[in-house]
Amino acid sequence: MKKGKIIVLSGPSGTGKGTVGKKLLEINHNLAYSISATTRAPRPNEQNGREYLFVAKAEFQTMIERGELLEWAGVYDNYYGTPLKEVERLLAAGKDVLLEIDTQGAQSIMKKDIGAVFIFLLPPSLVELEKRIRGRGTEEEAVIQKRLKAASAEINLGKDYNYLVINDTIDVAVEEILAIITAEHCKTANNLTILNNLLAKGD
Amino acid sequence: MKKGKIIVLSGPSGTGKGTVGKKLLEINHNLAYSISATTRAPRPNEQNGREYLFVAKAEFQTMIERGELLEWAGVYDNYYGTPLKEVERLLAAGKDVLLEIDTQGAQSIMKKDIGAVFIFLLPPSLVELEKRIRGRGTEEEAVIQKRLKAASAEINLGKDYNYLVINDTIDVAVEEILAIITAEHCKTANNLTILNNLLAKGD
Repeated sequence: MKKGKIIVLSGPSGTGKGTVGKKLLEINHNLAYSISATTRAPRPNEQNGREYLFVAKAEFQTMIERGELLEWAGVYDNYYGTPLKEVERLLAAGKDVLLEIDTQGAQSIMKKDIGAVFIFLLPPSLVELEKRIRGRGTEEEAVIQKRLKAASAEINLGKDYNYLVINDTIDVAVEEILAIITAEHCKTANNLTILNNLLAKGD
Repeated sequence: MKKGKIIVLSGPSGTGKGTVGKKLLEINHNLAYSISATTRAPRPNEQNGREYLFVAKAEFQTMIERGELLEWAGVYDNYYGTPLKEVERLLAAGKDVLLEIDTQGAQSIMKKDIGAVFIFLLPPSLVELEKRIRGRGTEEEAVIQKRLKAASAEINLGKDYNYLVINDTIDVAVEEILAIITAEHCKTANNLTILNNLLAKGD
């Protein structure tokens, strides 16, 4: 069985990573969601173990110290991180693993050179980004202002990713990301065993 | 408008480049077929200007001398080549250009570093490849033997391509190539203008 790939989906907050990620998982059943751990409070309708593992700051600190996180980052006074064990289990089972993470987390995975695919989700415009952040209705004004200020700097980080996808129409963005995942599996480096078997056995 | 991409589809003869290419063009209307010139005789049902430009050897020689060919190669006592002018016209119009060419032709385009995408079509097995070549029923036994002997060496060339696609089920191969084309357009290098406009204008 072919080993799965880590698909990192990132972008400024408000670009719609969550919505896009949810649709990807609905359509591509070889894609698995790796739940992040966070110290922030659950939003209405979020459940522990479904959207996030909600943990206390002390517990998060222990996970860092034990090397149990693939990446972690502090964002707006809270911590977010990816538990390593679950990712490894899914990859070994041939699943692709979707990591919906912020730009800090993505940057720390880039440094690890673990063959992950980096997809950056862009908003169609900054005006639209603001609209989406406000529309969410779950943040205080001070938090919204912080996010908007960070957006430009975050968008600039997109240059380091493998792919840029514009989230104007969700369905188009989802279709493009599904295509990226399919194409990544067709890359020559991932198929040399098949080619070599064909040459060796001749059948 | 975004400039189109050259999509090189190659592989050993008998892998089904023609059938796959035809389906790709039926589905993806931004993809255009660039007709090759050849000195070989037309097969039954082939029309001049549709499958190939059928030209005499002297005429082909003139095209080479005038630099009118993007690539050309001698294959089984005949010449095949890609007229440059038509490719450039299509790319400028924002079309992706499909080049269905043999492995020699693909290798000469690789040397040119023109940003083409190289897709290698593999047969599911050598037994299946032989079946397909014989099934075509248009070649003499000596030509069939030549092609089969060349197949292993040709398959080995697949290592130099960007993508390997197995043509077991045609629909799956077609779907994978369509995904590759979509993904290539999402690559960061092809979308930096969009990212920079977003940063500059903020709208």
